[in-house]
Amino acid sequence: MRVDGTPYRTIWLARDGWSVEIIDQTRLPHRFETVRLTTVHEAAHAIRAMLVRGAPLIGATAAYGLCLAARADASDAALAEAAHTLIATRPTAINLKWAVDDMLARLTPLPAAGRLAAAYARAAEIADDDVATCRGIGTHGAELIAAAHRKSGKTVNVLTHCNAGWLATVDWGTALAPVYVAHDAGVPIHVWVDETRPRNQGASLTAWELGRHGVAHTVIADNAGGLLMQRGEIDLCIVGTDRTTRTGDVCNKIGTYLKALAAHDNGIPFYVALPHSTIDWTLEAGADIPIEMRAAEEVTHMTGATADGGIATVQITPAGSAAANPAFDVTPARLVTGLITERGVCEASAPGLLSLYPERAT
Amino acid sequence: MRVDGTPYRTIWLARDGWSVEIIDQTRLPHRFETVRLTTVHEAAHAIRAMLVRGAPLIGATAAYGLCLAARADASDAALAEAAHTLIATRPTAINLKWAVDDMLARLTPLPAAGRLAAAYARAAEIADDDVATCRGIGTHGAELIAAAHRKSGKTVNVLTHCNAGWLATVDWGTALAPVYVAHDAGVPIHVWVDETRPRNQGASLTAWELGRHGVAHTVIADNAGGLLMQRGEIDLCIVGTDRTTRTGDVCNKIGTYLKALAAHDNGIPFYVALPHSTIDWTLEAGADIPIEMRAAEEVTHMTGATADGGIATVQITPAGSAAANPAFDVTPARLVTGLITERGVCEASAPGLLSLYPERAT
Repeated sequence: MRVDGTPYRTIWLARDGWSVEIIDQTRLPHRFETVRLTTVHEAAHAIRAMLVRGAPLIGATAAYGLCLAARADASDAALAEAAHTLIATRPTAINLKWAVDDMLARLTPLPAAGRLAAAYARAAEIADDDVATCRGIGTHGAELIAAAHRKSGKTVNVLTHCNAGWLATVDWGTALAPVYVAHDAGVPIHVWVDETRPRNQGASLTAWELGRHGVAHTVIADNAGGLLMQRGEIDLCIVGTDRTTRTGDVCNKIGTYLKALAAHDNGIPFYVALPHSTIDWTLEAGADIPIEMRAAEEVTHMTGATADGGIATVQITPAGSAAANPAFDVTPARLVTGLITERGVCEASAPGLLSLYPERAT
Repeated sequence: MRVDGTPYRTIWLARDGWSVEIIDQTRLPHRFETVRLTTVHEAAHAIRAMLVRGAPLIGATAAYGLCLAARADASDAALAEAAHTLIATRPTAINLKWAVDDMLARLTPLPAAGRLAAAYARAAEIADDDVATCRGIGTHGAELIAAAHRKSGKTVNVLTHCNAGWLATVDWGTALAPVYVAHDAGVPIHVWVDETRPRNQGASLTAWELGRHGVAHTVIADNAGGLLMQRGEIDLCIVGTDRTTRTGDVCNKIGTYLKALAAHDNGIPFYVALPHSTIDWTLEAGADIPIEMRAAEEVTHMTGATADGGIATVQITPAGSAAANPAFDVTPARLVTGLITERGVCEASAPGLLSLYPERAT
């Protein structure tokens, strides 16, 4: 998508043809800065410290991380160690493991001398595939938004949680791809943006990317969505997911479950947008998905821009008070109206998913 | 309750015998400062700018505000204008209007010369009544916590939202009174503290007062409660309320409804603690309660302590992104396990409330 008129992806090869550049998302929305990655350890750090985040982008970054590893040492042992380092960075997102496993499966059968070129080719393919996948999600999801507009004749109000926009993918986004496609097609749309504590990905990333693209939006505290639904100010919810079970349970940013409950209680459609790579076909129940516990400081401290243009971090809790920071929760399939994938929209269930991915039937 | 060993209420007469002192709650948890109120306009400002907050404390502050007004001019016209000024500060809390109406009803029949002494006497009575009421809530609610402990034999995990502790009342609190009574009686207890965006009353006030009293607690993002309930880490929820309808619908800090939905979905008891003054006997449906819209800056900006001990405000949203800030939502009675009042625990329904307040039957 565009940033001040310049088209960007979230990850790309530098002009040197081998190092990798990313947008440092920890600096948004107050600074737009890019960072160059030259080693697998820098790639792992970028994932762990959330310079890049969002399940699809984490997968692409891990793929390029293996390219950087192969550049230093393309031996089996070195690639295995690099894979281990990358997978250890974030435990919940399935795309990370998917991308690493995919790269290893393609590289290890090759002679060491052929691995580097193959790695870069496959990483580029993973990135391009993600763009095509997200466009597909956008096309299918935009039809739901357009249908809501045809029904009401009014601006369609969409609630989203966290950032599942183009910043979370290589381009287009998952939950926001339908918004961009509908907006570009002229459907009047307004997005309620959950700020998404504790890391504020909504307030800092979703608001930023919607604003840059010209989509009307309003930031709200995560607490506010229930009231807005009670009052009829939300037409549909679209969120992303970090891992979806074969039965349609959805693991996504902490707080998603609460919004799904409120949507269900108020008869408002609740959609989850996802690429195929987010589906964990090995898992039946969402309760079996490991939930990442992150640092308490993300709850106790908050970073933002000061009035004089600087960046400052402030503590919002009393000294001595403990904090806990689970990063994801699981929304059971019974609360999900539908799954929006690159192949179409389906029911959140095993039969629903298998209707779109029949090759997964066993 | 105690602050560094010194017993405090949240509002008290100064040594001069006429001005009123309060704790400036906008400075907590990083600064403990008291402020002296000398005019009704200072009292109104303290309510509007939330130096004092919490429905019961707002009522007591308004009562003392009328004392300060009567000291300057005890005429009917002056008292009516003061009442108007005070009621206009916050639209949702019923205690404010209750206290102002009660004061006026007692003062206006008196000759002007007798009004000042009567005003101070009644304001002190309102404050003392609030303390007795909150102790009653604590006694009745603590039995629920003790019963949970007897059943499990383990530490009882209580979730609370916003601050309905002693800082929200004159002393003891509403939702936290049962916690303090149970804790003081030796029941092992741990409180999950919702930070309560956008004003962070949980992170800044509830965590502070629990910590000062020695109650184990952990601050969490408002998004986290659903996951904790799914995982069995919450035994019961207790929240306060700013206005309760005669049918048991509960208006409380924005986000309360989402926690009630999650408690209901997970079979966890959800209690609301309230003094009689919070019940609006004129209202049937919670949907009819006016919801205060507060400034967008409470969402877009955050204030806290810097590493060097200063206080700073940072912006967390991009320049140009709008924000909306509804302050309350309504939890329907069907999601409330019981109401904890100074007269006992009852079902959240008209028959339930009338069983405790039979004098309200018409």
